[in-house]
Amino acid sequence: MKALLLHANKFATKIIEESTRPNGIKPENKKSPLEEMEECLVCFFTVENGDNETKLENFYNEIIKTAKEIGTKNLMISPFVHLSNNIASPEVSKSIYELLMSKFKNTDYKVSASHFGYHKSLQLDIKGHPSSFRYREF
Amino acid sequence: MKALLLHANKFATKIIEESTRPNGIKPENKKSPLEEMEECLVCFFTVENGDNETKLENFYNEIIKTAKEIGTKNLMISPFVHLSNNIASPEVSKSIYELLMSKFKNTDYKVSASHFGYHKSLQLDIKGHPSSFRYREF
Repeated sequence: MKALLLHANKFATKIIEESTRPNGIKPENKKSPLEEMEECLVCFFTVENGDNETKLENFYNEIIKTAKEIGTKNLMISPFVHLSNNIASPEVSKSIYELLMSKFKNTDYKVSASHFGYHKSLQLDIKGHPSSFRYREF
Repeated sequence: MKALLLHANKFATKIIEESTRPNGIKPENKKSPLEEMEECLVCFFTVENGDNETKLENFYNEIIKTAKEIGTKNLMISPFVHLSNNIASPEVSKSIYELLMSKFKNTDYKVSASHFGYHKSLQLDIKGHPSSFRYREF
């Protein structure tokens, strides 16, 4: 798993169209045409072949640690297929994404997610302080 | 070398402070406090250990190919240390970056670059059509 954690003034994404690749991808039901969040930690991640619940747990812990360090309770979870060439199947990616989202239930984080399985526009405004860009491998 | 090529409505970056890591990094001279470009191909890239002129040539060719496909002559070259954990020394990264910039001389591309060796804010507005996010490894 590869991840990019960004401390943002603003994040916004808008659905353009359904993805048709990788083969077999099933876009999740649309929650809304647009997802927006301000003053948040944006968590882009790419699920790779061989990823499992342990790696997911490490990623989850890294999100919590980073959120504490930068002082935010706002999380934008963003499935993102563009951090690796060794990507997992759409089924595995989707299940890891859903498992990650379930971990935030019963926490006091405000969590949103960008849509899984769609081509989307992306607006980002990243703060730029020394801890506002973090690349991680799990 | 890892790269993320993004078809953008807008890119903007502003210097926050000089980077002090990796050890030995020498920020380039400030061109301006801000770099902005509209309707462009944003080329984020991370130079890794073992990268050489052949890989750089492949990256350059991929930039030209992508720019033609999306129909832009505007390129924003963005040294970015956050796409790998296997990063090259600052000296090597800087020389590869300078070599890349030199390849665009005497072409008809309008080329700008975000500052090497600084922590910077980042504003991105990415179009979202199916070819507007491309991850590449060289």
